[in-house]
Amino acid sequence: MPTPMSQYLSEFVATGILILLGNGVVAGALLNRSKAQGAGWGVITAAWGLAVLIGIFIAGPTSGAIMNPALTLALAAIGKLSWSLVPGFVAAQLAGAFAGAVLVWLSYLAHWRLSDDPAAKLAIFCTAPAVRDTRANLLTEAIGTFVLTFAALAIGANSLAPGLGPFGVGLLVVVIGMSLGGPTGYAINPARDLGPRLAHALLPIAGKGGSDWGYAWVPVVAPVVGAVAGAFAFQAVYG
Amino acid sequence: MPTPMSQYLSEFVATGILILLGNGVVAGALLNRSKAQGAGWGVITAAWGLAVLIGIFIAGPTSGAIMNPALTLALAAIGKLSWSLVPGFVAAQLAGAFAGAVLVWLSYLAHWRLSDDPAAKLAIFCTAPAVRDTRANLLTEAIGTFVLTFAALAIGANSLAPGLGPFGVGLLVVVIGMSLGGPTGYAINPARDLGPRLAHALLPIAGKGGSDWGYAWVPVVAPVVGAVAGAFAFQAVYG
Amino acid sequence: MPTPMSQYLSEFVATGILILLGNGVVAGALLNRSKAQGAGWGVITAAWGLAVLIGIFIAGPTSGAIMNPALTLALAAIGKLSWSLVPGFVAAQLAGAFAGAVLVWLSYLAHWRLSDDPAAKLAIFCTAPAVRDTRANLLTEAIGTFVLTFAALAIGANSLAPGLGPFGVGLLVVVIGMSLGGPTGYAINPARDLGPRLAHALLPIAGKGGSDWGYAWVPVVAPVVGAVAGAFAFQAVYG
Amino acid sequence: MPTPMSQYLSEFVATGILILLGNGVVAGALLNRSKAQGAGWGVITAAWGLAVLIGIFIAGPTSGAIMNPALTLALAAIGKLSWSLVPGFVAAQLAGAFAGAVLVWLSYLAHWRLSDDPAAKLAIFCTAPAVRDTRANLLTEAIGTFVLTFAALAIGANSLAPGLGPFGVGLLVVVIGMSLGGPTGYAINPARDLGPRLAHALLPIAGKGGSDWGYAWVPVVAPVVGAVAGAFAFQAVYG
Repeated sequence: MPTPMSQYLSEFVATGILILLGNGVVAGALLNRSKAQGAGWGVITAAWGLAVLIGIFIAGPTSGAIMNPALTLALAAIGKLSWSLVPGFVAAQLAGAFAGAVLVWLSYLAHWRLSDDPAAKLAIFCTAPAVRDTRANLLTEAIGTFVLTFAALAIGANSLAPGLGPFGVGLLVVVIGMSLGGPTGYAINPARDLGPRLAHALLPIAGKGGSDWGYAWVPVVAPVVGAVAGAFAFQAVYG
Repeated sequence: MPTPMSQYLSEFVATGILILLGNGVVAGALLNRSKAQGAGWGVITAAWGLAVLIGIFIAGPTSGAIMNPALTLALAAIGKLSWSLVPGFVAAQLAGAFAGAVLVWLSYLAHWRLSDDPAAKLAIFCTAPAVRDTRANLLTEAIGTFVLTFAALAIGANSLAPGLGPFGVGLLVVVIGMSLGGPTGYAINPARDLGPRLAHALLPIAGKGGSDWGYAWVPVVAPVVGAVAGAFAFQAVYG
Repeated sequence: MPTPMSQYLSEFVATGILILLGNGVVAGALLNRSKAQGAGWGVITAAWGLAVLIGIFIAGPTSGAIMNPALTLALAAIGKLSWSLVPGFVAAQLAGAFAGAVLVWLSYLAHWRLSDDPAAKLAIFCTAPAVRDTRANLLTEAIGTFVLTFAALAIGANSLAPGLGPFGVGLLVVVIGMSLGGPTGYAINPARDLGPRLAHALLPIAGKGGSDWGYAWVPVVAPVVGAVAGAFAFQAVYG
Repeated sequence: MPTPMSQYLSEFVATGILILLGNGVVAGALLNRSKAQGAGWGVITAAWGLAVLIGIFIAGPTSGAIMNPALTLALAAIGKLSWSLVPGFVAAQLAGAFAGAVLVWLSYLAHWRLSDDPAAKLAIFCTAPAVRDTRANLLTEAIGTFVLTFAALAIGANSLAPGLGPFGVGLLVVVIGMSLGGPTGYAINPARDLGPRLAHALLPIAGKGGSDWGYAWVPVVAPVVGAVAGAFAFQAVYG
């Protein structure tokens, strides 16, 4: 049985690599003179799903590789994770997401000064809605996280081939991005949005603009609501 | 052994999530100002196949995750599903597809008023032929559903690695879409077409046009014929 | 133990579906007004690989799902297939490829008259070199089929997870297409080229041109040479 | 237990096929009149990852399919590979990469004279930075190889489904390319860069320019540093 500290460390590492690879693909697609510039929605959504897969391979055996405070709370709410672990998990996930965003900044160090668009630079770190409409944005993020939680629990409950679970969850994140990411950029994870947003605010990124803190609560609140609802719905149907 | 009601509930949930993710990717690709706008045929066909994969993970252990009235009838025709379950399965699949389409409408709530093209909005819900030619359209849908049924039965009969079946069927739907979806948009499933078409007719979608009921029988009749033929062909060759 | 006739039938069916799905994606990408028109190299190579995967699921347990006369000869040459089965296998593969091409013609029935380009129509059925240079074309096809054979034997010899072999071989065909398909369109299979070429010659395709019989021997001879060399090389290194 | 010579031979063969398929997709995407011309970042990164997958299938059971001198050194540094094997592994990997690059030249033999851009021809063989900034380029390559090594060790340590490891590592290379390949083209492997660079210098490629030897040390030094750091970090966290 891993100790709580080793589980927190695992969540930190896995979330860091998740964000390095996830935010990294957006940097590659948006920054001028990147060899990946113009890589489209298919590449971005594939890479985010694969980033989740890698995170699960890293932290799965130790901490479950949750990497998401909304999922963490939802698992605690239905009794699949001890409440005593929740604060440490959430802190580790946020810190890992921050660290991963710093690594993205370093990985693309020569490119920040070559792009003029502050909105694109912010989009590399955190999400922004395509149409700013709080009610609609909350709804989109809640539905996406509901599906994530419900289906991830279903994949986890499937006992036919335990080694295939990571692939199932990675592909789940691919399809949620492809299908439900259009309106808000699918945070579906408070750490994925808040940690990199803080990094954007603190790092000396060449030519950056504001960090859009007015929107920051949406990809925190809606995913939590969606995840908890999804977990209870899964319990009601299949529990 | 799951009760019939729990099987119906499973088909409802899985078909709902199938349509949420499947119709969702079309919404993302077609609606103005969606971040996924312009995502092409590769993304659309990948997402539909992954949507099937997620549906199978959800409902596979309970109801087989058929999610398709044509396949349901075909399985009953060759004795792999009790006829007594067929009406409940079909009703649950249609209701689930309707519910999934409502969730797509909600997920993209801020975007419907930003697009002017009623045909694109209808295409998010249900299929339309690229060239309106009833004989050719019936043929295309029947061939596609024949392949779906024949190959899904082959994948199910493969006993080497049972956990891989969902991935096999998901990828089967990807390739049918890529290869045979060009002429009609590959309904290959009456519920996938009819449920969302009804949702299109009933929902207050901004700027919508007609629901093209004149074509609605084609993606019902042809898939049933193709699926039943595919099931009997599989039995003849490998039964 | 399956009878020879059941093995021939399996090769016929699997090769038919391979060509229906493989040639189908080219039809979808090239024919006017197809919803898949313009789907690029990624979609085409993915679909061909998935078509092989589906063929393996269908015929793998019965006949090994070889679907390729060059591979058939190579397996016989190294003693992994009885020479007595070779004529039946090759005939079934050619007949299946012909039948699959007929199904592609039917699946896209309304679209042939809408395109003016006879070369594009031929490209849906069989391969043509990007640059007509017999020596270079032979080399490209031989190298591609060498890799196909060597790596497929390696995947088959890997005993860690037998159910994963079909996925490995399907992905092998994806990457050969992506990486080595540029110069000749990667026939790497005499049946894949010759059967559909014959179908092109015989079917009443609206607006078709010649069937380019002058090139037809290249994607027959080079794959046989490459496959036999690959099989002996595999035996020399790992046998 | 395989002999050292059989392991060296395995590394030679697997690295050769890795480079044939990996450099091949760049040739297909960049050379004029290739059918794959214009295939974008998604196809290139997918093919490189699949090339690694095929290499693992080939050499995994014999030599571990390391195919990368930086990984080789890192594994020796943490005691997972005998130092006595390191010189032979590195030599075999470099020779294999050279041979694979020669095969790419042969596979696209008719196309070299049809393109005028010497930089594109060099890019088919080895990497070049998008922005020439030694400090930033070293950082990017080191971070990418750190992730490669850390995550590959995590995948290898996962005992749930051993047959899935090759797929995990192949997909890891896909996502590293998509997410971290933008600034330098992700060598993350000294053999992948140095062997083909030497082939570029020696082969009679029509219309080639210089081989950019001034940059050649970067994709050697940075991957070694990143890989060794990644291996020790993995040991510190999960060892």
